This record gives sequence, structure tokens and C-alpha cells, in this order.
Amino acid sequence: MRASHEPVATEQFKRGMRRLAAGVTIITTLHDGERNGLTATAVTSLTIDPPQLLVCVNRSAAAHDLIRKGATLCVNVLAQEHRALAARFAGVDGVHGPERFLEGDWSVLKTGAPVLVDAIAAFDCVVTETVDVATHTIFIGRAVDVRAREDGAALVYEAGSFGSVQRAG
Amino acid sequence: MRASHEPVATEQFKRGMRRLAAGVTIITTLHDGERNGLTATAVTSLTIDPPQLLVCVNRSAAAHDLIRKGATLCVNVLAQEHRALAARFAGVDGVHGPERFLEGDWSVLKTGAPVLVDAIAAFDCVVTETVDVATHTIFIGRAVDVRAREDGAALVYEAGSFGSVQRAG
Repeated sequence: MRASHEPVATEQFKRGMRRLAAGVTIITTLHDGERNGLTATAVTSLTIDPPQLLVCVNRSAAAHDLIRKGATLCVNVLAQEHRALAARFAGVDGVHGPERFLEGDWSVLKTGAPVLVDAIAAFDCVVTETVDVATHTIFIGRAVDVRAREDGAALVYEAGSFGSVQRAG
Repeated sequence: MRASHEPVATEQFKRGMRRLAAGVTIITTLHDGERNGLTATAVTSLTIDPPQLLVCVNRSAAAHDLIRKGATLCVNVLAQEHRALAARFAGVDGVHGPERFLEGDWSVLKTGAPVLVDAIAAFDCVVTETVDVATHTIFIGRAVDVRAREDGAALVYEAGSFGSVQRAG
């Protein structure tokens, strides 16, 4: 990198990232009978054929190692009514590990990773590839089952707060 | 993969992905004096330190090879007023390559990749890593400059249409 290409200051990067809106999800996993999960917005579609998405997870997250070992994850896309659940899985209540699942209506599809029954969409995935980048791991998940609702208002995060999508018509 | 872990059908995956809301961006690049760009929602923050994001781009996109060769990209986060520009850079008008930049107010920061002057946020990046996955390339960009506005309504895409974020308060 040229001298003029030094990385930008952390605060400036964060200020920009606050403005990138994203759907809010809970990523869950199961390994050796243990469930865990975390709230995440760093999720995106990757390829359609094969049906793959990616998720960026901080290696310091408790769920990280479980996802890695179990090679299984489910992306649960949240609705407006899941705001408290999003806070819970973000650790706001101080509740960790399997106890987080004491709230919400959870089921499973094929992999065994917890699926939020009333999620707007749920992508049950096997992890096919991992990429380590600095503090994070990019998990590439191949969807082996998908549930989706046509109704329900998606929960989005932007500018430091939750919101909903107002259709332009 | 176990037999029960066959990939889900493409249509089912797409139906789920329609419900994952995302901010709309235009990814631009410059290589050898040639500019190109495309509309993208597959963009996410990756690490804060160093300040890195990722972008998933189909290898069939004209801008793909330029990003690869120039190792430079700028993520321009769009506002409501950029809806026509989003359609233009998605190829809806049939306008391709450098001509796309005849609409919009464009400048540069450090890398030379086009920066939309009134973007809600702009991340000027050098590409530090690429990961090939099936039809797509994941570009990991390190931000060398960032511009961000506190005002302006973000343009989001969900359920097949554009929208805005309605704050929950």
C-alpha cells in the first residue's frame, strides 16, 4: 500500500458503517448437543447456484467456536416483533449460551441448528468454507433448507437504531 | 454432506433472500483510466481494526475484472434520492461501462475510484484479498478514506422493492 493508502481511522470507519442499513438476524448453531447463537447484521447472499450465503463472526463470540466445530448454522431473519430477542442475543440482558433460547419459539429443520419458528426467513446451512480475516471468520454456508414468510415486517438496523422498511410503493 | 443435506432449490433460496433487507450501494472502480460500477446489496462490514468490508460480485459483471485488476473499489451507500441511479447502475436502462457516470455527481478520494458526492456514506478501499466462490468473488476491501453524512434517508431493498428505514424511535 502506498503511504497515502494508510487505513482510515477506526472512528471514521464506524461513522460510515452506521449508515449501511442491514436486516437483523440471529445466527444459531448446534454442536455436540450444545446450542448457541448471536445477533448479527453482517450477513449477505453470496451465490444462487449453489444456494450460499456468508456470515462474518467475531472470533471472540462464544458461538464462533461452536459454528466452526459443528460446521452448521442457521440464519434467522428477524421481524419487528423480535426486537427484544435481538437485544437478548446481542448480550444486552447479560444472558449467554443455551439460556438465550428460553425466549422465542424454537424448532429445527435439517441440520439441528435452532430455527426461530416465526422468523421472516430462516436459512438452515452447512458450512462449506471458512475464511479467517483479522479478528473475524467469514463462514460460507450452503442452504440445505429455507423457510420464508411473505408477510411480516423486517427488522432493520441503521444509524444506531432499529427500524422497519417503509415501502416506496 | 449427508444425503439429507442436499442444497435447497434455487427458487426457495431466492424466496428467503427476498426478505433479507439490505442497504443499496453502488460499487465503483478505476483501472488504467477506465471507470466502471454496479449496484450491489451484498456488502457488509467485516472488521473494525483494520477497517475492512466485503463485497460479493458476480464474475460475469463487467466491473468485476476491473476491480480485480485495479485492486480498488469504492462502496457508495445510496440515499432515497438515488433511486434512478441505483436502477442505472443495475443495468435497467441498458447503459453500460463509463457512460453510467454521466448521471450523478462524481468525485474521487484517495484511490481514484469514483465517489458519489452526495452518498450517505462512501468507503474508498484498496482490495487486500479476494476469495473465489462458485460464480462470485468476495472482495475484501480495506478502507483508506471514508465520508459519511449524518442526515439523509438510506435507500434499502427488501421484498423486491426499494424502501426507506422508518425509525422505531
